Amino acid sequence: MKIWDISMGIHPGMPVYKNRDENRPVFTVARDRAGGSAYETRVTLNLHTGTHLDAPFHILEGGSTIDVMDPGRLITRCRVLDLSGAEDRITRQDLEDHAVEADDFIILKTRNSKSDTFDYGFVFLDESGARYLRDRKVRGVGIDSLGIERDQPGHPTHRILMEAGIIILEGLRLAHVSAGEYTLIALPLKLEGLEASPVRAVLVQPPLF
Amino acid sequence: MKIWDISMGIHPGMPVYKNRDENRPVFTVARDRAGGSAYETRVTLNLHTGTHLDAPFHILEGGSTIDVMDPGRLITRCRVLDLSGAEDRITRQDLEDHAVEADDFIILKTRNSKSDTFDYGFVFLDESGARYLRDRKVRGVGIDSLGIERDQPGHPTHRILMEAGIIILEGLRLAHVSAGEYTLIALPLKLEGLEASPVRAVLVQPPLF
Repeated sequence: MKIWDISMGIHPGMPVYKNRDENRPVFTVARDRAGGSAYETRVTLNLHTGTHLDAPFHILEGGSTIDVMDPGRLITRCRVLDLSGAEDRITRQDLEDHAVEADDFIILKTRNSKSDTFDYGFVFLDESGARYLRDRKVRGVGIDSLGIERDQPGHPTHRILMEAGIIILEGLRLAHVSAGEYTLIALPLKLEGLEASPVRAVLVQPPLF
Repeated sequence: MKIWDISMGIHPGMPVYKNRDENRPVFTVARDRAGGSAYETRVTLNLHTGTHLDAPFHILEGGSTIDVMDPGRLITRCRVLDLSGAEDRITRQDLEDHAVEADDFIILKTRNSKSDTFDYGFVFLDESGARYLRDRKVRGVGIDSLGIERDQPGHPTHRILMEAGIIILEGLRLAHVSAGEYTLIALPLKLEGLEASPVRAVLVQPPLF
């Protein structure tokens, strides 16, 4: 069993969305070793930091929150598609060649995985691509950018996927992973009433089931 | 495939170690929906909140940190032992009946799982029990308390396990789970240079491998 770690490291200097300083994680020493104590850290984290899952509540008022997302849906067969050729965005046309099937969890590997800094022109899934994946009835979509869409007013990509109950997984690192079939494991923390969760995401090959 | 969620919910009113206020998670709105923005939360969290993994650096000066813990070790066959009869602590004698074998990941179900508040007298794994599990060469130990030991000066239980490279998983919720064999999945976040990570922990039955 081979495990591929497809997660970003979380640290104060990591890439964050649009390089916003308020999005950088902060680590504080909560207890040092004085008086024989154990060492403990307190972390302040925007929930959309690094590799993370979005729950519908992120975009949809009244949408469901991350704590009620069934963890069994995040232990799933998945397919990595190589879309490294897409320069600006992933459209319906880019996806049509890939024989996407119902209940696939699709992971989009793009040129984003080659960069270790935040790219304002990151490749994203556009509205036509989101509609196509929705119509194919996929289970989830993962991508190697901090957002699955870029500057689309009204967030149509998120909205189309979320309204259909399709899971969105962002901030993956895929440079070292080939197109193919795997088991994806990416369980959300049980953050009650909240709209997202950072996750550790891995691919297992051969698939576990 | 049946999934058992064995994680604590994370929220401001959850049980925290010794009811210390500074250990309570804090949720802040980072962005609301004003101006068409997506909703985002910022969380401040002691890394030992709820269900979590300890890395050796928590106790051992110079010990390894959570980001270098191999995620493949947290997708593992495991055994839940029912130790609900132990009133105060789990000793070597309590464990000897259970035919623990090398490379087992052992999960200790105790009376702690019956309580939803922090119990200052929680059942823990004492030094003799830790030595026994170390000598049996287990892979990891999980328990349904926020600490695997209670008020033992010098943290001998942590120390014995960590010095042998045995993983420590704390804060499990096991009331609804029976003794038996499962696959445990409990991947740490890739928190660079830090001593612990909150996790979502699940058991899968029948075991995946």
